[in-house]
This record gives sequence, C-alpha cells and structure tokens, in this order.
Amino acid sequence: MTVKVGINGYGTIGKRAAWAVSKQDDMEIVGVTKTRPSYEAKQAVAEGFPLYGACLEDVGEFDKAGYKCAGTLDDLLKKVDIVIDTTPGGIGAQYKAKYEVAGVKAIFQGGEEHGIAGISFNALANYHESWGARFVRVVSCNTTGLVRTLFPIDKEFGVERVIASLIRRGADPSDRRGSPLNSIEPSLKLPTHHGPDVQTIMPWLPIQTMAVVTPTTLMHVHCIAVDLKRKVTEEEVMNVWKKAPRVRLVSGKDGIKGTGQVMELARDMGRARGDMMEIVVWRDGTKVMDNHLYYYQAVHQESDVVPEIVDCVRAMCKMEQDPAISIAKTDKAIGLAK
Amino acid sequence: MTVKVGINGYGTIGKRAAWAVSKQDDMEIVGVTKTRPSYEAKQAVAEGFPLYGACLEDVGEFDKAGYKCAGTLDDLLKKVDIVIDTTPGGIGAQYKAKYEVAGVKAIFQGGEEHGIAGISFNALANYHESWGARFVRVVSCNTTGLVRTLFPIDKEFGVERVIASLIRRGADPSDRRGSPLNSIEPSLKLPTHHGPDVQTIMPWLPIQTMAVVTPTTLMHVHCIAVDLKRKVTEEEVMNVWKKAPRVRLVSGKDGIKGTGQVMELARDMGRARGDMMEIVVWRDGTKVMDNHLYYYQAVHQESDVVPEIVDCVRAMCKMEQDPAISIAKTDKAIGLAK
Amino acid sequence: MTVKVGINGYGTIGKRAAWAVSKQDDMEIVGVTKTRPSYEAKQAVAEGFPLYGACLEDVGEFDKAGYKCAGTLDDLLKKVDIVIDTTPGGIGAQYKAKYEVAGVKAIFQGGEEHGIAGISFNALANYHESWGARFVRVVSCNTTGLVRTLFPIDKEFGVERVIASLIRRGADPSDRRGSPLNSIEPSLKLPTHHGPDVQTIMPWLPIQTMAVVTPTTLMHVHCIAVDLKRKVTEEEVMNVWKKAPRVRLVSGKDGIKGTGQVMELARDMGRARGDMMEIVVWRDGTKVMDNHLYYYQAVHQESDVVPEIVDCVRAMCKMEQDPAISIAKTDKAIGLAK
Amino acid sequence: MTVKVGINGYGTIGKRAAWAVSKQDDMEIVGVTKTRPSYEAKQAVAEGFPLYGACLEDVGEFDKAGYKCAGTLDDLLKKVDIVIDTTPGGIGAQYKAKYEVAGVKAIFQGGEEHGIAGISFNALANYHESWGARFVRVVSCNTTGLVRTLFPIDKEFGVERVIASLIRRGADPSDRRGSPLNSIEPSLKLPTHHGPDVQTIMPWLPIQTMAVVTPTTLMHVHCIAVDLKRKVTEEEVMNVWKKAPRVRLVSGKDGIKGTGQVMELARDMGRARGDMMEIVVWRDGTKVMDNHLYYYQAVHQESDVVPEIVDCVRAMCKMEQDPAISIAKTDKAIGLAK
Repeated sequence: MTVKVGINGYGTIGKRAAWAVSKQDDMEIVGVTKTRPSYEAKQAVAEGFPLYGACLEDVGEFDKAGYKCAGTLDDLLKKVDIVIDTTPGGIGAQYKAKYEVAGVKAIFQGGEEHGIAGISFNALANYHESWGARFVRVVSCNTTGLVRTLFPIDKEFGVERVIASLIRRGADPSDRRGSPLNSIEPSLKLPTHHGPDVQTIMPWLPIQTMAVVTPTTLMHVHCIAVDLKRKVTEEEVMNVWKKAPRVRLVSGKDGIKGTGQVMELARDMGRARGDMMEIVVWRDGTKVMDNHLYYYQAVHQESDVVPEIVDCVRAMCKMEQDPAISIAKTDKAIGLAK
Repeated sequence: MTVKVGINGYGTIGKRAAWAVSKQDDMEIVGVTKTRPSYEAKQAVAEGFPLYGACLEDVGEFDKAGYKCAGTLDDLLKKVDIVIDTTPGGIGAQYKAKYEVAGVKAIFQGGEEHGIAGISFNALANYHESWGARFVRVVSCNTTGLVRTLFPIDKEFGVERVIASLIRRGADPSDRRGSPLNSIEPSLKLPTHHGPDVQTIMPWLPIQTMAVVTPTTLMHVHCIAVDLKRKVTEEEVMNVWKKAPRVRLVSGKDGIKGTGQVMELARDMGRARGDMMEIVVWRDGTKVMDNHLYYYQAVHQESDVVPEIVDCVRAMCKMEQDPAISIAKTDKAIGLAK
Repeated sequence: MTVKVGINGYGTIGKRAAWAVSKQDDMEIVGVTKTRPSYEAKQAVAEGFPLYGACLEDVGEFDKAGYKCAGTLDDLLKKVDIVIDTTPGGIGAQYKAKYEVAGVKAIFQGGEEHGIAGISFNALANYHESWGARFVRVVSCNTTGLVRTLFPIDKEFGVERVIASLIRRGADPSDRRGSPLNSIEPSLKLPTHHGPDVQTIMPWLPIQTMAVVTPTTLMHVHCIAVDLKRKVTEEEVMNVWKKAPRVRLVSGKDGIKGTGQVMELARDMGRARGDMMEIVVWRDGTKVMDNHLYYYQAVHQESDVVPEIVDCVRAMCKMEQDPAISIAKTDKAIGLAK
Repeated sequence: MTVKVGINGYGTIGKRAAWAVSKQDDMEIVGVTKTRPSYEAKQAVAEGFPLYGACLEDVGEFDKAGYKCAGTLDDLLKKVDIVIDTTPGGIGAQYKAKYEVAGVKAIFQGGEEHGIAGISFNALANYHESWGARFVRVVSCNTTGLVRTLFPIDKEFGVERVIASLIRRGADPSDRRGSPLNSIEPSLKLPTHHGPDVQTIMPWLPIQTMAVVTPTTLMHVHCIAVDLKRKVTEEEVMNVWKKAPRVRLVSGKDGIKGTGQVMELARDMGRARGDMMEIVVWRDGTKVMDNHLYYYQAVHQESDVVPEIVDCVRAMCKMEQDPAISIAKTDKAIGLAK
C-alpha cells in the first residue's frame, strides 16, 4: 500500500514535490491544486497529475479555459493520507483548519511560522521528532542549507558560535513580481529570522545572521564563519561534508566560480528542471585557521527542500524508522545518490 | 552503419550538439575536444563521450588534472566522417585547413562568415543546398529564428518587406565575461549583420534589422513587422506556424508573459538542460492589419540551432533526401515532435 | 507678477518639475504635496518647498514624524494659479474634480488618458493648442521622445510611415517594486498605446509601435524605421536634429555605446540629479538609404518631460506667445541651452 | 601659493579627484591625462582642465580627433608638486619610476599594493603617517568604508574582533566590460585581501573578511559583526558615528531600504555626479546585544575615497597639521559638511 499524497499549490515547490513523490515507490500523488489556469496547470495535466481547483470558483475557471478539473481541494482532501501545503508564505496557516477538519496530516513550508505545527523538520538533524506527527513544517531553503552543513560539523567538532551573512536572490527565475533591479537591500531587522529558524531544528546552536537581497534569480549564497570547540584541519572538515547527505563539494578550479556555473552544472548533469537539490560548498572557498572555519555555500531556493519533504512524509506516516535509509531511498529515486 | 561525428569545442553549442547526435540512431559521437579541464570536461566523460585535447599541450593539462584524454584533435579527425566545429566565433576559420587536410566534412557555426563554407543552412528553407557538401555553415541563433518563422510565411503569402528589431540577451547564463550590467546598447553599425545573414538562406527577402543588447541571459526577443503581398487573417497566419517545424505558439493568457516563463515552461516540460529549441511566437502578441503582420518571437540562443546541426549532418552525408523526414526524425529523437 | 504653481505628488517627476519651475523667473513653487514622510519629503523641506499632505490624515502623519506640514492639498489649491499633477498613473483622473472645484488650472501626466484634458502637449509640436487651456496633458516620456525627433523630420521631409520598437527600462533606479529580474517581456497588446499616443500630438502620422520591457533602470531605447516622402542624405537629417530643441547627438566613437554612458555623460556635465532631459540620438547609429531612415534614440524616463511641463505652464497661463522663446527661456534656466 | 596638482588618469576616480581639488582654495589642478579621445576627455576640457596625453602617441590621437592637447604626462609632471595617480589597478606601479625621476610626490590608489608606497592613508585614522611623505597610497573604497566606521568605534569602546562580509557591486554604472549578469560569485581566496588591507591602517585590528560579487552597479554593502571590549548601548554607538566625519546615518523608516534609495538621496541632495561620499550606516539596521555590535553599511565605490585624496595632498605637502581642520576644510568645499 502506498501513501496517498495531495499537493495544495502547484507552484515552484509544489510541482517539484509532486515530481519527487511520484518517483518514490512507497507514495503516490493523488492530485494537485491550482487556483488559475496557466501553463503550469497544463503541465500538471500533461504529467498525469489530477488537477483540482482550490475552490469551486477555480473549478469554473478551469472548465471555461478547457481544462479537465477533478474537483475542489475539499474533494482532494477526502482521498489523501497527507497533504503537502505549498501555498505561498502565510497562506498555509489559513488552510490548517481545513486540514484538521478533513482529518489529514499536513506538511507546511518554511514560509509559515514554526508555531503552525510546533515541529520543524530536517531529515538529517531531527527526523524522529516528526514520527507519526499530524502537522510538521519543513524549514525554508536557507534554513535547510544552514542545517545541512552545520549539523554534521557541530556533531563532529562542536560549534561555539556561528555568524552567517546571507546573500539572497531577489526573485525566482520565472517570478513576474520581480525585485528591485539595481539595488542591494539589507534585511534591517536584526538579528534576521534565519538564526532563530535554524534554532527550531538545533536549539542549542549560537548563531547570528544578517542578510541582503540582490538582483539575481539563481541561488542564495551564504558567507559563514564558525568558531569550533577545537582545532581542526581543512581535510577533517571536508571529510565531514563528503559523508553528509545532500551536500556537494565543488571547486573554483574546475570553473565553478559562482551560482551561474553551479546551475549550469545541474543542467549538464541532466537534473530535472536543472535543479541542484544539494547544498553546494566550495572546497577552495573553505578556510580553516586554528578553530575558526570560514566557508561559502550556495542554496538552490527552488529545490533544496524537496527531498526533505519526501522524507518528512515517511516520518509522519511512520513508513521508515531509520532516517539514513529514508534519505538514501529518496535520493536514489530522484537521482541524488552520492 | 552510423555516421561518425566529432565535436570540436565542447561548450554551449558543442555539448548540446553531442547530446542531440547521440540520441539519433543513424549517427554517433566518436569524441569531443576541450581545451581546458573543467566541470564541462568532467561531464563529457560522465556522459561517455571520449575526451580529446585540442592540441598536445591540452592533453598534458588533462593528464595532470587526472582526466583520461583519448588524444588530440588530429587523432580525433582520423576517426570521424564529419566534424561539428563549435569553437568560439571566428576560431572555426582557423581550423578549416586542418579539416581539409584530414579529409573530413565540417559544419561551422553562425559566428563564422558565410564565406567560410559558401553554403549556409536551415533545414526547412534550403536543406538540399548542402546535399553532399564538404563544408556548410549552420546560421546563428537569431538568423535561424528569423528564417523559421519568415520562410513559411513568405512561402504561403509572399513577403514584401521585413523590419525587425532584435533585443539580444547580454550573455549566456553561465558566461563569466558578462556584459554591461545596467545599460541598453544599440548595435550602431546599420543595417546590422542579421538582415544580410538571413539573405544567405533567403536571398530574395527584403529585410532590414536593428539590434540592441540588454542585461539578461535567457533568450533573445524579436519585434517583427512584415508587409505581405496580400491581405491575410490572424487565423491564416497561425495555421502556417502551427504546421511549421520548430515553431511553438504560446500565449500570455496562460501566464507566459516573457522569456522567464518560456524558460520555465521548458524546464517543466522536462527538456534536457531546460532548453527550448523551438522558436516561440506569442499568439496574443501577433497582430494582422490588412497586409501588415506584427509579431514577437523569442529565441533560445543556447539551443535553437541544435536540431539544425543534426539535419545538416544528414544532408551533407547524404543520409536522407527528404528534409521533412530528417526534421521529423531529429525532433522525435530529442523530444521536439509537435 | 509670477505665476503660482503647486505640485501634487512630489515623486520622480514632481520633484524635478518643482526644481525646474523654481529656476524660472516668471513662476514660483507655492507648495508640494506628499502622502508619506520619507527622505523625499525631508528633501523637499530642505529645498525650501512648503510641504502639504494630500489629505488631513497625511498631515497628522507628518506631524507625528516631526515634519512641518503647511496644510492639505485643499489648502494648497487655494494659493495656486495652476497645479502640476504628478501623482501616479491613473490617479490624476481622481483629482480632476477637486481641481475643477478649486478653480485652478491643471497639468496632467502621460500616465493619464488623453481624454482627461482633451489636449495633449509638446512644446515644439503643438504649443498653441494649450493656449489659455484649463486642463492639459503633457505626454509620456516615450511619446515625448518620439515627437521630439519625428516632428522636425516630418516638417522638413514629410514622413510616409514609422515603425518603432521601444525597449523599455523595467523600473526607475530607486523604484522598490522592481520588475522581473532576468526576463524580456513583450507588450502583447498590439499595436501598443505608444503609436496612438503620438497621434494625440501629430494625428496625421502613420506610426506603428511594438514594445518590450527589459531589466534595466536607466533609459528607454527606441529603434525607429522611417519611410520619408523623398530621398535625403544623412547630413540633411543631422542638420534637422542639430537645430531641433532638446535633441542631443552623441557618438559611439566618443565611447558613448549605450545608456550607461549617456547617463555618465549627464553626471559629468553637472546636470541636476544626473538627468539627461534631451532625447539622445546616435550619429553613428543613424542610417539613411534612399528615402529610408533608421535611427536609435535614448529617452531618460525620469526627466525628459520636465522642460515640457514648464512650457506648458506658460502656454496655459498665457505667459509667452512664441513657443521658441518659451523653450529657449526654459532651457537656459535649467542649463539645457544648445 | 597653492599646491599644483596633476591627475594621471581622468577616469572614475580621476575626474572626481580633479573636481574636488579644484574646489579647494589651497590647491589647483594643473592638468589631467587621458589615453584616448572620448566623452570624458571632452568634458575635462569643458571643465577647464588642461588635457595631456599619457604618451606622445596619445597626443597624436587627440590632435587627430580635434582635441587641444597640452602635451604629454612628462610635460605635466614638470609643472606639478604632486600627482594623483588614478590609473587602473596595478598600472600605478608602472608609473612610479617616472614620478621618482620627475621628482614629484605621488598618491596611489587602493588598486595598488601597500608596498608601492609603504604608507596607506585614511584622514581620520592615520593622517600624520603621511606627513611630508613622497609616496602614499589612499586605500580602496571598501577599506576606506571599513576604517571610517570601525576606527571611531575601536577608539571609543575597543574592538576584540570583526567579521565582515562584503557584498560587492559587479561593475560601475558606465563600465562596459561588465560582469556576470545573473550570478553571485564568492571571492574564493580566504581570507580576502580586505582584512589585511584594513590592517595597513589599523594594524592592531583582528578582522576577517569574506566577499561576494553581485550584478549591481551602485554601491557595495557590508554586513559587519563586531565583538567589543565592553557592553555598550545602541545610543552610545550612534553617538560615535554622529560625530565621525564622512559617516551618514540613514533609516529604512524614511524609505531608504537599499542602495537604490541611497543613490537617489544623493541625487536629490544635489550632490555632484549624484555621489554619496560618506559611508552610509542604517540606524535601524544596527543592533547591539551586550558587547556584540551588528550593522550594515553602504559604500559608494565611485566616490568615497575622493575627500581622502584631498586630505592626503595636504598631509604630504605639509599644508595643514591638524587632520580635523583638513577634513572640515575639504568637506566644506565639496558640500559634505555635517
């Protein structure tokens, strides 16, 4: 028996989650919702995902536009074990009551507050906290990125303090709202929410974050300074990340100088949608001085949380007890295996 | 027996040509050249394409960097029937003598002058001119784009005059040399070379072109005004393009408002590298008034010439006499079939 | 006696209009309105322009923020002969009734429909149409640009037909709403409104326009193809533009290759705010073939209408009968004299 | 008697230095050099700065292009007491011998190594080190920015440690070489040169820097984390910066959210070329927690070193002993007075 999954909000994350779930052998997509007829809705149908309107009105619009619509979100919720809420930030909170009434489990995204579920998820760091849970939040792309590289470092060496500056992309590649075209905008409210958000997963970690928004679309980049509890070597650090899941080491010497080349690499590797779901760390942009570690990493905001969502389904639906096995299974099915 | 193909210059076009050739059942990639060890060279090896250095020095560099290198370009030329020269613009001319000495056929790119081969190629418009030819130039991305939509319109209705403004992308997504960040630069030399370049394929076509460069990476966009020999309707025009190969009609009503969404569509469709090899014309950006036709089209500079290159191999190596059959075969193998 | 002028909306155009009016000896700024305390409002005060809130609520907000506020728009309207409405596009129409009740003349911007006033203005082309008028619209930056170069050409040689492609900037330099970061977006509704808008000034001109939006902030660029009624030489064309007011010839040979260098030139010339109020035409980007004229021009969307607004005040308030004298007077006062 | 100053390299910094020097009453511009006729050379002449070619060949080119050229750099060096070398990074080193032979003092820019002069300059921090010196280097825009805000903080509270991430602009607004259009590129070599460069002025300061390049043109932004020797309040910190020269406090609450609005403010203030020569610190982007200080600042790469250059002339030519008086004099003359 496969777990039946619905996607509420077939957008940037939703369409990737649908794809990743459909590649697993222990879960299946029962339907996806969309509020407006569009090329993405067309493509959902082409992929074989039954299309639902968020509400009755939407269904009418789809009918008018000539799309076959299988019903409303309410109809979909009757057919699923778990819904992945990939609606825009803050909207998930409005849907929670509906999911409760329907008696389905729900995964929210990092655009929602931790309090929406009381549990925040990262497969490597705290898989078991979500075991059998009704509601869980998978943390945002940036938080996922910070946890993926910091958790194994902390486990191996102990971390005294982290200071991270996040250079955020302004908008996604197909985002029409856009962003200031020629400006760097600091996130003035300090500390930014990213540090506390990491602490929903690693509450013991002393981390301060600053952030700016820049006019690019491809990836976020993090400048990270870590004080460790002991002296280490660069080799020791590299060995930790080599073994860590969903972390990829790249090198400027190979011509990968920035996010433009990281994305090109993903395209060349034949990744679906040209996605780089791993956190990318530059070998030659990593420096260790005594117990101080400095490194750069790039985070693909469109896709890095996608494998986490799949693992989260397994934890919540009690499908696999060992996080390592779930991670390996997820990654193999979507072509991420190390 | 399959035709043996070499790629000289495994870069933006070269890697796509290698992929497209390798998907055909009547031709195969014997090797690809690269001048420097890099992530693209690594990926060539991962794809199973034997790697050659452009010269002996390169081979040494590859050896030092731990890449297995199968020899030099000279070695490769001994093994192929035809070489696809995808070296940077102007460099192909320097290699021509080498290809002549080696006795292999060669396809050059649109960055070279027409005179390098004396024949310029577009599959739909003049396939037979290259029948059995020794050297042929496949025209540039912009010229290919103009010919794909104008040739069938001219054939059906007759064209009196074309005025086209080309809004060019500044650089490719992974291009590190970049381009002015916040400037629009007109191509001051008028008429620009694009009009005469179209005339290497359609010498009878009265076309004037202007061009600007803008700071984007995704696609070129053309604003095209055509005076036709007779009054037509928008429906008639659409019917021509619906039947034309490698032309895709999209609609702003579906949310495809610009090149950002066109590229997103290609990613969602599962296209290799997220490429949109067809020329994209906006239905709701096409206007007919009496015998005047105005339309916008988008050209994916990284990939639109790729299927043309495959067809060009077939024409030059006398593998298929009917261009329509070659086009259909090429497109089916790489997932473009209408 | 100087004419008393109020500015409703101290933003991109409003602050420049206030500055330009304040430089004339026959008119003065009585006050400017702003809806929110901000650095622009602070600067208005620093410039000595009395600050008014658009409504009573605004006045309260200014008080709270520690700005001295002279009253509301209603108070300001009692003190002026004419108001320059530089509110955002479409908002001017909502204010018209207020201006009527207050019995003041009003100038609207190109973001409003022609019908708001029934008269559209360009100083060179139709100054007298606004003589003594109650309400007039100064046309948009792009329309002003097209009229400035086309009107004198039409007058001298006669124009048969114009096809223009407008490459628009995505957002102004300080605009926080922004625009798609890496996309070219065609204006799908054809013909775009720019052609008909030129015809509000030159109703006899057969002009078709297409337009795209690109991710830059500095200027618009136009690619213009003109069929003239007779053969001309490039020298004849240049001589027309040399004599035309508010047209500046530049040359790629001097290093002015795009809008980035045009703006740098304006800064180097010591222009207020680094503005280039003239329409910039490239000498070496102008080509004449028989009776066909092709040229590129750049339009500084933040400032080109500003001198027109000043002249419009003079026409509406019957201050100067000869447009040439008004133009010369305006330009001398703000440093544009040829 | 005024000190006679030459500018070698009338580009981004050179033209501003010429302007700033010409505004002082104790120094004057004797001439400026340029290697190519261009709009900037034209403007130098328009400003009344005698134009020299870098070499005889240049003079010939200027003659051909119709510019009046007063001679070569060698001729200019005979007439000056001090030359400000504003040639591109690394080129200054090649000119040093020429300056030595000519027996003139010389100021180099931050693009040169500290070793070129052995003394690096910041007016506030180490004015006296350059007293009477033959050769001095004014540090780069980023280093100047870091020293301007950190030196007074260190003096007042004592600094234990600084970690700074520099988000650099990709290219200047009129730079035609450009930069990657849609990529964030980390400076892989760690620690970046910025920390050691600060230490050429403040050798005792424990500072580590990381840096990325982003596709914008306006300003750099720094994310700075400082450990202080004692607990402080935000008010104490603000009071330090309020008194510090060439530091400007701005606020997001006033609508200044990013570098786009900072530059707009400079334009609105009527600054020459729209320059913001002060380092801009966000009040509401500054956070103090115990002895930890976090803040964002923006650095106008085109202009922030300009007043430093003027002060450096005074120190080297022993014109004024008190740095505070020199700073005040410089700033008053160019409109920076607090």
